[in-house]
Amino acid sequence: MSIAARLEQLGIVLPQAAAPVASYQPLVVHGGLVHLSGQLPFVEGELVTGRLGADVDLAEGQRAARACGLMILAQLSAHDLLERVARVVKLGAFVASAPEFHDQPKVANGASDLMFEVFGEQGRHARSAVGVAVLPLNAAVEVDAIVALG
Amino acid sequence: MSIAARLEQLGIVLPQAAAPVASYQPLVVHGGLVHLSGQLPFVEGELVTGRLGADVDLAEGQRAARACGLMILAQLSAHDLLERVARVVKLGAFVASAPEFHDQPKVANGASDLMFEVFGEQGRHARSAVGVAVLPLNAAVEVDAIVALG
Amino acid sequence: MSIAARLEQLGIVLPQAAAPVASYQPLVVHGGLVHLSGQLPFVEGELVTGRLGADVDLAEGQRAARACGLMILAQLSAHDLLERVARVVKLGAFVASAPEFHDQPKVANGASDLMFEVFGEQGRHARSAVGVAVLPLNAAVEVDAIVALG
Repeated sequence: MSIAARLEQLGIVLPQAAAPVASYQPLVVHGGLVHLSGQLPFVEGELVTGRLGADVDLAEGQRAARACGLMILAQLSAHDLLERVARVVKLGAFVASAPEFHDQPKVANGASDLMFEVFGEQGRHARSAVGVAVLPLNAAVEVDAIVALG
Repeated sequence: MSIAARLEQLGIVLPQAAAPVASYQPLVVHGGLVHLSGQLPFVEGELVTGRLGADVDLAEGQRAARACGLMILAQLSAHDLLERVARVVKLGAFVASAPEFHDQPKVANGASDLMFEVFGEQGRHARSAVGVAVLPLNAAVEVDAIVALG
Repeated sequence: MSIAARLEQLGIVLPQAAAPVASYQPLVVHGGLVHLSGQLPFVEGELVTGRLGADVDLAEGQRAARACGLMILAQLSAHDLLERVARVVKLGAFVASAPEFHDQPKVANGASDLMFEVFGEQGRHARSAVGVAVLPLNAAVEVDAIVALG
């Protein structure tokens, strides 16, 4: 089954791929690997802002991380790479966190679970998840990725 | 000398490789590189928690970073990759830090020195070390890695 | 045109490549990729310190990020790799940030724009930019990189 068909089966509609506004790119392909820039969480076109443990609860944080994952898929799709994914190699999840919030892994699962839903075993990846003070545009979550092409 | 023999010579007993509890994996092998997930510091089965510059002093922080490094070795060992390490390419060290704590590099040396002890010149790596607000489960340090196989 | 000639044309003099003081290296070359350690911002030999949104304004932060980028070029030059750069693949920008500062991308552009100035299209890269609580030696910015060799 193609990834496009799988997305349809899952009822997933990818967002518009966000354009970076600087001398960097959404992704770079080199040597069979795609390095994707950190993606921010847009849900229905609105950026999810605030910090986990303060303004954003766990469920919202997970949706935000999933939205970052959807944007990763959207970037791959916009560059005609979605059907060529052989393996999701690594996700880096940065979670804007209040000092007492320790559930960054549960938040990051929003993105990780999406990769498994969409790509199956090829979607299982290495990951780091950390809590940061603040993210661009006050985003709640940012996720970057390394993906291998077949 | 095998790495197993070298570990024994150094008196190092690897911990039990920790299992991730989500749709991610401890490591992914692709194209001769191993991307390892961020590892947390377990010392005698107990997670080292708290922030450097507040609850955790420099020596404890270095032990914690070393424990993250030992977990990296344990993950490689659990996947039968330890003897195939050709080069430790990169370590990413995230240090939970109070605002006035600036010695993240000294903390990260706990992991870096371990790699040099165990692998010699092949253990010399590139590294980034940053201070973050908070880490999963309130861990004091998290270290991820890229390792090349021979 | 060689990169050395391009730097001269741009009026850029590279700083002295900073030496790491531990069991890690400024960079590791493996499989055609260079992984560069996180570089700190030295401007005329002085480290730029403090947090964006508190002690450091946006223009200073951008200069600091550019200085990190110059140090990346200096490290490549010191290892005779500057003329072999085929692509800047990824920059990771860590910006020491007060809680209300959300312009990490604008800060990171200081490094990103430099790569485009020096390498042209080959300088366009993927990027993540996050706000962290505190950096080594109280640095304002830290940037690490992955660069492909031709």
